[in-house]
Amino acid sequence: MKIAVLPGDGIGPEIVAEAVKVLDALKLDLHLQSAPVGGAAYEASGHPLPPATLELAKASDAILFGAVGDWKYDTLERALRPEQAILGLRKALGLFANFRPAICYKELTHASSLKPELVSGLDILIIRELTGDIYFGQPRGRRSAPDGHFPGAEEAFDTMRYTRPEIERIGHVAFQAAQKRSKRVTSVDKANVLETFQLWKDVMTDVGKQYPDVQLDHMYVDNAAMQLVKEPKRFDVVVTGNMFGDILSDEASMLTGSIGMLPSASLNDKKQGLYEPSHGSAPDIAGKGVANPLATILSAAMMLRFSLGQEAAAQKIEAAVQKVLAQGLRTPDIYSEGTTKVGTQQMGDAVVAAL
Amino acid sequence: MKIAVLPGDGIGPEIVAEAVKVLDALKLDLHLQSAPVGGAAYEASGHPLPPATLELAKASDAILFGAVGDWKYDTLERALRPEQAILGLRKALGLFANFRPAICYKELTHASSLKPELVSGLDILIIRELTGDIYFGQPRGRRSAPDGHFPGAEEAFDTMRYTRPEIERIGHVAFQAAQKRSKRVTSVDKANVLETFQLWKDVMTDVGKQYPDVQLDHMYVDNAAMQLVKEPKRFDVVVTGNMFGDILSDEASMLTGSIGMLPSASLNDKKQGLYEPSHGSAPDIAGKGVANPLATILSAAMMLRFSLGQEAAAQKIEAAVQKVLAQGLRTPDIYSEGTTKVGTQQMGDAVVAAL
Ligand SMILES: CC(C)[C@H](C(=O)O)[C@@H](O)C(=O)O
Ligand SMILES: CC(C)[C@H](C(=O)O)[C@@H](O)C(=O)O
Repeated sequence: MKIAVLPGDGIGPEIVAEAVKVLDALKLDLHLQSAPVGGAAYEASGHPLPPATLELAKASDAILFGAVGDWKYDTLERALRPEQAILGLRKALGLFANFRPAICYKELTHASSLKPELVSGLDILIIRELTGDIYFGQPRGRRSAPDGHFPGAEEAFDTMRYTRPEIERIGHVAFQAAQKRSKRVTSVDKANVLETFQLWKDVMTDVGKQYPDVQLDHMYVDNAAMQLVKEPKRFDVVVTGNMFGDILSDEASMLTGSIGMLPSASLNDKKQGLYEPSHGSAPDIAGKGVANPLATILSAAMMLRFSLGQEAAAQKIEAAVQKVLAQGLRTPDIYSEGTTKVGTQQMGDAVVAAL
Repeated sequence: MKIAVLPGDGIGPEIVAEAVKVLDALKLDLHLQSAPVGGAAYEASGHPLPPATLELAKASDAILFGAVGDWKYDTLERALRPEQAILGLRKALGLFANFRPAICYKELTHASSLKPELVSGLDILIIRELTGDIYFGQPRGRRSAPDGHFPGAEEAFDTMRYTRPEIERIGHVAFQAAQKRSKRVTSVDKANVLETFQLWKDVMTDVGKQYPDVQLDHMYVDNAAMQLVKEPKRFDVVVTGNMFGDILSDEASMLTGSIGMLPSASLNDKKQGLYEPSHGSAPDIAGKGVANPLATILSAAMMLRFSLGQEAAAQKIEAAVQKVLAQGLRTPDIYSEGTTKVGTQQMGDAVVAAL
């Protein structure tokens, strides 16, 4: 089983190193190979996703990804910025199904901005479509406005689009995930304004008919943004498009208070997947040895489960993470009085010891 | 001064009646005229925004709007649904500048989902562009996909667009609002993915140079959705596009815990405006006399200030609302132990008495 290891920028290399340490400790037959990505790759070879990195990713069963991005690349033209690497990988590998759990860890309930009773035990699975929508829709660009409020003025534009089969396949992913959970799916749209999301809603309704055991409801995106704050536990599986999913999954993960703990998976139809923490590259704390490696370690667990068929190993990692939390070990982002503050490497070592 | 009164659906008529009561009590020289809108107008005449209602709105200095929408219209074709009335008014009157304050009322701090220390004293002003973006961009519709993942498949699409002058004018509104507040503007974009919001960011930067006394920063929309949850008080004036503004303003108003209290204003370049509560039509509680009229009453105050030049009268209303809160009067949505529960009309009467 081949794994491409792409550490990236900021805290990426530190947290990925700990996840690799944990994978090594499991003594599975894994072949890991590293390659540069993001700003690090741009510095080394002038492109955030060099051809060799892309080839390695394509030829692997799974990708363990750290994080990309840093303020210092903000002035580069868009095609050379670190984020293009992640967009490029999603597109080239067809990673259309993004799984973003928003879980509130019992031990971290009090780290949430929300009142404990609203988040304790929270466990939402956001499923975001990841290769369509306005992220990749053509045409897009700048031009002289052909009509509208200011014809002839400088204008920028993008195209939001979804086809029926694109919506169907992410719909099946969501309904099948719900069958293994509480059998409820909330599809988030903006059908009252957008043609694209009227089709989305229609197709989700159609797909839902094939899953009579799962209850489907529809919610507008603005309302979903409110209900996540008001009553997050009303949600179980949430399925939505690329743009709305970007916003809602970040909102949801922040309100758990456990963002340093949340993994993510992005899969294609061959179960090839990219696994990365939900948080970003945090350049402000890079290199200080204080970043929380647990989201990345838990991403490695998801990788073992979804792409490598190693359910037992995945559970072993998850149990080890639970154990270090129960032991009271905390990186600074999740530290609270009465617990023991540790650094990135100590946390990784503790997980290995707990395996 | 002519005011079009459009009560609409659900709790709209009840809450607007209380705002009208308050306006009447001020004994200003106002000419109020009512007209049907939304589902109510559809029932009466087959269209959510009948020509007579639109003409009345155009001929008025301001519009006092209740709310539109009900589940029962969900199956109508989009052009006939209640929401089209509000979109139609925005477009026909060119109401491009939407002001959505997200204020946490001292007395209601504990009604927020967030911990009190995170929201007490919160006072954000979200300025949402309201006549451009993907809400109105042409072309849009359904077709056979011309290219993409599934060429030939059924596809729906919309166009996101902004021109430089559209961004400039909402930028000026935001910077000028900030000059009267804490002199900070956060512009929210998604320049890392969207051409439209790269232009948005560029233009905001340009406009900002004309306001050297105001500090401008830029934030991606996904990060903004997170920071609102994590540390809402870091924001003062937030300016963003129509779609992102829809989502973020609802998220922000919900996290104040005061959503039944939040007014909104939508202005054009002649200071003509539409004023409505931030909350919706709440068909589940319509006709029960329990809806909170304060957001609508405070919208009437905004109307006096922004469109009718009656600052003193606006302040009188705002002071009266503060007084009824201090008296402990609460509609059920904001009720807590130790306060006095009142209905819609009692609340309106109390505001009149407090004037
Ligand atoms: C970096 C950026 C392009 C990306 C996105 O918008 O998808 C990120 O926010 C994410 O959610 O993975
Ligand atoms: C009703 C709907 C079309 C509208 C919008 O999306 O703008 C509403 O959500 C709002 O924010 O006023």
